[in-house]
Amino acid sequence: MPNFKIVVQYDGTHYKGWQVQNSTEMTIQGKLQGILEKLVGSFVEVIGSGRTDAGVHALGQVANFHMDLPEGMDEEALLLYINSRLPRDIAVISLEQVDDRFHARFSAIKKTYRYRIHVSEIANVFEKNRLYHYTDYPLHVQDMRDAARILLGEHDFGCFCGNKHFKKSTIRQLYDITINEVVNNGKTAEIVIDYTGNGFLQNMVRIMTGTLIEIGSGRRDVESIKKTLESKSRKEAGYTAPPQGLCLLSVQYKG
Amino acid sequence: MPNFKIVVQYDGTHYKGWQVQNSTEMTIQGKLQGILEKLVGSFVEVIGSGRTDAGVHALGQVANFHMDLPEGMDEEALLLYINSRLPRDIAVISLEQVDDRFHARFSAIKKTYRYRIHVSEIANVFEKNRLYHYTDYPLHVQDMRDAARILLGEHDFGCFCGNKHFKKSTIRQLYDITINEVVNNGKTAEIVIDYTGNGFLQNMVRIMTGTLIEIGSGRRDVESIKKTLESKSRKEAGYTAPPQGLCLLSVQYKG
Repeated sequence: MPNFKIVVQYDGTHYKGWQVQNSTEMTIQGKLQGILEKLVGSFVEVIGSGRTDAGVHALGQVANFHMDLPEGMDEEALLLYINSRLPRDIAVISLEQVDDRFHARFSAIKKTYRYRIHVSEIANVFEKNRLYHYTDYPLHVQDMRDAARILLGEHDFGCFCGNKHFKKSTIRQLYDITINEVVNNGKTAEIVIDYTGNGFLQNMVRIMTGTLIEIGSGRRDVESIKKTLESKSRKEAGYTAPPQGLCLLSVQYKG
Repeated sequence: MPNFKIVVQYDGTHYKGWQVQNSTEMTIQGKLQGILEKLVGSFVEVIGSGRTDAGVHALGQVANFHMDLPEGMDEEALLLYINSRLPRDIAVISLEQVDDRFHARFSAIKKTYRYRIHVSEIANVFEKNRLYHYTDYPLHVQDMRDAARILLGEHDFGCFCGNKHFKKSTIRQLYDITINEVVNNGKTAEIVIDYTGNGFLQNMVRIMTGTLIEIGSGRRDVESIKKTLESKSRKEAGYTAPPQGLCLLSVQYKG
């Protein structure tokens, strides 16, 4: 059966995340599977590169599914068919037939997430659902950068895992953390953190972000993040930053 | 009493427009007036450069109000005071004391509105509330540009006035209409129309846009717009394009 790879964008504000929970909850995977099932008359599993939490967005989520194209329908027609039936906060921006062995989750080698912290007193009125508005304390970006550097490389990231019952390895590799400031009228309006790694645990980006915010605000030492990592204990890390600031930017595959 | 000029941005999605209707409806003017009244203990009128309809947005609405600053409060503190009390879909981006004679409506000499038509089958998931999604017919942009040129200059724009009971002059001057295409992956994703004039009648931009869409889709001749103008009759013009595609970009003043 042909294997199709799709790239999906969504505003996660009104969804219970990527993964189907039950038949009544709105999920991105559920919306896509529903459209394909109606088209071909049988269940089609849409395999995502990974879950995203409720309220988290995606610019480049990747998924695949195995399906026979209905007669007379080519890839372009399938893309239009899906998009014309999706709500306006989900879009399939590309669709292509790929090698049978391609698996959106297992074949992924690298992912990049972006977390946007809005630190200005003046609201960003058009993007309020895509930002974490944080003005409790000023954030010292250099401290956040210094702490982020300690997280790079291969570590047991158990302290940043939001799933208490997670049984598998919590070892991951972080390739890069870039922290940029968006300046508006001479003042920092936003702090944008891009995380690239070979994989991320549940809530990992949000907990790392909460921890970096606690460091940036001076409530934690930069160096303390070493002990946090070594502890492998969720209790030692910072709070879980809220979902709306997070966006899955891209998923990379071999070749 | 000091006179303050403010520049206001808002996502109009959840508002009944700029102007206060009654005490129960959410309006931008109502939100601002409520905050100032609480601050000084008496009613403060916030005079906008003009109304915007329910669902219409603003990047650069301008308003003014006369008010004595409470003791110990400077302009910067007032700006922060207002912003910290506004909902996150309204922001005052600047505040300055101005000449006593400045009046946001009467002193305005030029306004620019932007109307965004989303013509791609693939949704813009993050801006769905700021776009009019139109895929009924392909739009021929050159025909729209040719028709727009006929609208430039001073005319009686009575045919584009949505208020049947409007008694004053419907003569206005249009300085410029620019129509641009936003291309994504080689396909037009958006048609963006910027209108600049010395003033606009109620619904004028939305009715001009609806008329240009009917021309672009081939349902009206380019030349027919001359007769529409001459008729001065609302019935001769096209439909009123929906509010969410419209944004007040800027208001200009002398000096």
